[in-house]
Amino acid sequence: MEKLRIGVIGTGAIGREHIKRLSERIVGCETVAVADVDRDAAERVASLCGAKCCESGEELILSPEVDAVLVASWDATHAKYVLAAVAEGKYVFCEKPLSPETKDCERILEAESALGKRIVQVGFMRRFDSGYRALKAAIKSGVIGNPLMIHACHRNMTHAATMTSEMSIKNAGIHEIDIMRWLLEEEYVQGQVLLPRQNGISRKENLQDPQIMLLRTESGVTIDVELNQSSGYGYDIQCEAVGEEGTVRLPDPATVVTRARGACSFEVRPGWETRFTEAYDIELQQWVDEVKADRITGPSAWDGTVACHTAVVLGECRESGEIRGISYPHCPDFYKNMF
Amino acid sequence: MEKLRIGVIGTGAIGREHIKRLSERIVGCETVAVADVDRDAAERVASLCGAKCCESGEELILSPEVDAVLVASWDATHAKYVLAAVAEGKYVFCEKPLSPETKDCERILEAESALGKRIVQVGFMRRFDSGYRALKAAIKSGVIGNPLMIHACHRNMTHAATMTSEMSIKNAGIHEIDIMRWLLEEEYVQGQVLLPRQNGISRKENLQDPQIMLLRTESGVTIDVELNQSSGYGYDIQCEAVGEEGTVRLPDPATVVTRARGACSFEVRPGWETRFTEAYDIELQQWVDEVKADRITGPSAWDGTVACHTAVVLGECRESGEIRGISYPHCPDFYKNMF
Amino acid sequence: MEKLRIGVIGTGAIGREHIKRLSERIVGCETVAVADVDRDAAERVASLCGAKCCESGEELILSPEVDAVLVASWDATHAKYVLAAVAEGKYVFCEKPLSPETKDCERILEAESALGKRIVQVGFMRRFDSGYRALKAAIKSGVIGNPLMIHACHRNMTHAATMTSEMSIKNAGIHEIDIMRWLLEEEYVQGQVLLPRQNGISRKENLQDPQIMLLRTESGVTIDVELNQSSGYGYDIQCEAVGEEGTVRLPDPATVVTRARGACSFEVRPGWETRFTEAYDIELQQWVDEVKADRITGPSAWDGTVACHTAVVLGECRESGEIRGISYPHCPDFYKNMF
Amino acid sequence: MEKLRIGVIGTGAIGREHIKRLSERIVGCETVAVADVDRDAAERVASLCGAKCCESGEELILSPEVDAVLVASWDATHAKYVLAAVAEGKYVFCEKPLSPETKDCERILEAESALGKRIVQVGFMRRFDSGYRALKAAIKSGVIGNPLMIHACHRNMTHAATMTSEMSIKNAGIHEIDIMRWLLEEEYVQGQVLLPRQNGISRKENLQDPQIMLLRTESGVTIDVELNQSSGYGYDIQCEAVGEEGTVRLPDPATVVTRARGACSFEVRPGWETRFTEAYDIELQQWVDEVKADRITGPSAWDGTVACHTAVVLGECRESGEIRGISYPHCPDFYKNMF
Repeated sequence: MEKLRIGVIGTGAIGREHIKRLSERIVGCETVAVADVDRDAAERVASLCGAKCCESGEELILSPEVDAVLVASWDATHAKYVLAAVAEGKYVFCEKPLSPETKDCERILEAESALGKRIVQVGFMRRFDSGYRALKAAIKSGVIGNPLMIHACHRNMTHAATMTSEMSIKNAGIHEIDIMRWLLEEEYVQGQVLLPRQNGISRKENLQDPQIMLLRTESGVTIDVELNQSSGYGYDIQCEAVGEEGTVRLPDPATVVTRARGACSFEVRPGWETRFTEAYDIELQQWVDEVKADRITGPSAWDGTVACHTAVVLGECRESGEIRGISYPHCPDFYKNMF
Repeated sequence: MEKLRIGVIGTGAIGREHIKRLSERIVGCETVAVADVDRDAAERVASLCGAKCCESGEELILSPEVDAVLVASWDATHAKYVLAAVAEGKYVFCEKPLSPETKDCERILEAESALGKRIVQVGFMRRFDSGYRALKAAIKSGVIGNPLMIHACHRNMTHAATMTSEMSIKNAGIHEIDIMRWLLEEEYVQGQVLLPRQNGISRKENLQDPQIMLLRTESGVTIDVELNQSSGYGYDIQCEAVGEEGTVRLPDPATVVTRARGACSFEVRPGWETRFTEAYDIELQQWVDEVKADRITGPSAWDGTVACHTAVVLGECRESGEIRGISYPHCPDFYKNMF
Repeated sequence: MEKLRIGVIGTGAIGREHIKRLSERIVGCETVAVADVDRDAAERVASLCGAKCCESGEELILSPEVDAVLVASWDATHAKYVLAAVAEGKYVFCEKPLSPETKDCERILEAESALGKRIVQVGFMRRFDSGYRALKAAIKSGVIGNPLMIHACHRNMTHAATMTSEMSIKNAGIHEIDIMRWLLEEEYVQGQVLLPRQNGISRKENLQDPQIMLLRTESGVTIDVELNQSSGYGYDIQCEAVGEEGTVRLPDPATVVTRARGACSFEVRPGWETRFTEAYDIELQQWVDEVKADRITGPSAWDGTVACHTAVVLGECRESGEIRGISYPHCPDFYKNMF
Repeated sequence: MEKLRIGVIGTGAIGREHIKRLSERIVGCETVAVADVDRDAAERVASLCGAKCCESGEELILSPEVDAVLVASWDATHAKYVLAAVAEGKYVFCEKPLSPETKDCERILEAESALGKRIVQVGFMRRFDSGYRALKAAIKSGVIGNPLMIHACHRNMTHAATMTSEMSIKNAGIHEIDIMRWLLEEEYVQGQVLLPRQNGISRKENLQDPQIMLLRTESGVTIDVELNQSSGYGYDIQCEAVGEEGTVRLPDPATVVTRARGACSFEVRPGWETRFTEAYDIELQQWVDEVKADRITGPSAWDGTVACHTAVVLGECRESGEIRGISYPHCPDFYKNMF
């Protein structure tokens, strides 16, 4: 079968990572075009991977040799490129978030549902992680009965210099927001943010860290997620679903176990890259395969919208500490029953 | 050295358990008198353990052959027996709670501080558990930096027929309330109760189950405790303290690990009795040794008061779901710096 | 870059698995030809994967459109195909064992070393498993000091109907034989086989099960490996290296942890396929990449020879139970220092 | 009930430890007399614990105020004191080994069986450890089917200056020898000792370390035990029984789990004292209770004899490395079916 010809918008760290992955680990595709607001950066990447360098994302989307588009640009520009791709009827894979603003997401919902065919996929790669998949399968198996609560932690080793309290929710928390509703197949009705004692070691203006997101779903499942940008010891993702008859929990990654120096231990790695490597591979391979088969099933524009809007609401109520109801934009029928 | 002669008030399940323990596992003491409102029950126990049977708790406390008193009667009667023992100047070990009512606790504080000597100890046995002790030692060692959050779970296998939403907080939750402030050596300033989706299997009138207690300490440490009266799989106590540089967590009890029938597993036992057997032993042995040395250091009347009052406040605000400030009765200087 | 055109000899279960993997998961190659002694089977596979069907392995090797050869035929035929490929100067990937007979391995050593270039690779996929790689890295890091012992287990769920005592060593044990010397970078000098009590449930003529292989390396490292063809509970691979200052051990695969029905457990899967899926992917991707770069570094003909000969010696002394010295065929200089 | 009046022979480290335990943790007994070849040491201990100091062990045994004897003297003197106690018809608890020489053990067997009543107990405290008890219960439950193999490790942190290769078997190994036959309820028929590469860090004349003991029982169960006097990281006891349908393994002691500094870890303590504290408590409490009830059930003189003789045989064949058959002294009917 012909290779899928992909154009990549955004040649920053994430974009370059995707280009490398498409070339080295994904079967049946090639990167044929790149674009970036930093034209020089785009040129360098283009020459390295043998792709054409476009003047703009819009030009790239219009290029006839581009079969499908991957958007890895600056968050605030995601929506416009996605909309342009939808206008052109080209499959588009957009890194999370679909947009930082609910209103932009709504425009995408309108455009895609008008088209009547799913062509937008959002980069919630955790849904492709074997651990989360086994977690969902276990919940569905009924072994824990109906889920009642989820306890989760999202711990980064250290935060970027630019990290703020709101970004902690919108960048890191958004993964948790998406994966919880995917696990439970339900929407949220209420949210709250707790502000624990500030980490004094990693103290920084504009960043309250840690924070705890509390979410409640339609059926009453209560979720607490520790958002911790400076765990001090490693990148650590924990998730335990508690049901009527038992619990099921994400495993720690398999790592050699050492007994030395008075302790039995295993390493917790600092970076998120290695934690979800395989999930990224599966995500993109499935996307390429499904685009070629003209039917995609990954995280939808609606999923992107819900995640965006939930993060927006939590961002608003985090400082006051109040308990806030959450209501979402209208969900076009097109997206119903899509979990 | 002479044996400590103990009188036990209350010969129900807990009282008999204590009498058996004092006889078989605690060195240097004997049970010389018992009393219970159910006179027949008291007689039976008295004849079995070779103790005298008193007409009433008050008579037992006044008996000259009783050196020290252990109160294991019905919760609502705890305070009056403790006050009577204090009036007599006799050491008294009172099962938790010190009282279900804050006002009663205050009377005990007054009486004991007037005496100017600690003679009341409350039965928060978890403080004697090697796991919690190691947890506190680890926190104090600085290995996790300043604590910022605690995540905890209190899961019973199944609930008694008489269990109610409020009792879940006042009976089970009170252990968590006490142990958290003992771990952190701080008082609470705020509380809230979340009411997750009701467990449909163990549904019962007057019992919302599970519940999540949220507490905030003076320095801002945020604590979430899952109170679960019907885990469906066993008695399971979990506790993880998260600090600025790491976390430390209570271990599961050591149990043989089996690989069979497609799984690697260890047993989670159904009952709380075996989980804290050793803690009860240490608690009572230390109490006996310290009473004989005329200086006790276990959980104080102030600890009992704080736990009682916190549970009362959470019991009040649990239905509304509101976030509630907590302020405690006046703490006599006598009890300051006693953690 | 052009795709590597691969010819696959042997279209049984393993051969088909490799063809599927080359097509779906390995970047930069295609299967262009297949052959099998069962001509019908070969035809079916050929038509499914769009490859040419050759009359014989020899014809396949000579086909000009075949750049490199993968041998997955019946064990006893491995050597002749490898020798034919070497004669043709084509890269050849041979499933383990290189041959069941030491003499055949020696012929391959001669032929390849005469060529003066490595073109033979043997399918010891465990060397590509992230767990074993981390184990080797840990040993090399010095954290456990010099290694002194290795304790290992190779447990299959149940054995094939054709399994015999000798095959248990030559098919399953050979993986252990290879990986231990790769971990330690040393040859064996002594072997012994213990015959524990026979598993009565899986009893079968010609199969003593379990067996324990004991091996001793040049420096005296002592290795015990439980070979268990009918663990009864799952496929389970364990390995612990014990050194002067500590130990390091292979982890269990990461799997969700369930608390239900009175136990905390994780699944042990029955099959070997899922246990080493990723290792097979890495093994073949690296082989394809390295063949295209004209320089291979995977397990060599010498590795295949040592594994074969060690298994032969253990097969000979297993019934008598005696302790046997092991001496290997001459190792051409060409293969020295190749770990 | 009256207190059991115990006389302790041997006031070295172990003797003093027992005296402390009898006083502080064991209910219903007191130490009334002590003796030691170092008369000054005995005097010091006697005055500290308020016991009488006897001129000799023999005098102590004859003292009318001594109800029962505890022997914690130098290994080579165990037998003579045990024999003297048996002659006097007094219950005697003898620290392991019963004797370093099989012949001495046989004399004890004769004397006790002539008496026709069990009065000798040997200090194999592991039989009272909750982990080993659960292990035995699991084996007996049938969950793993018939046992086929046991893999075990006995790792000390560092060895005493006086440690030798033979002592490693006779002092540490003897615990393993006893517990394995207690777990399996079978005698050994064959033994062998492997001598792995010498630990270069803890190298010392007359000490080969580590060693591996191999034992085979009557039914063919094969046991391998790593005896490691200088693990370098802690005191670590491991034991896994492998059966026809699964395995069961001793747990690591429950210890808080820390995530910090790039690792998830729990402490492995250096000393054996804390590892088996509870087992020692249970062992002595049960002995005191049973002696008072005039019927003891702990490890017998026959158990002590088998352990001694097995260690002697392994000590003899360890240097040659040969596989050696083991046959035991005649077992008086008196001791049959006593597991």
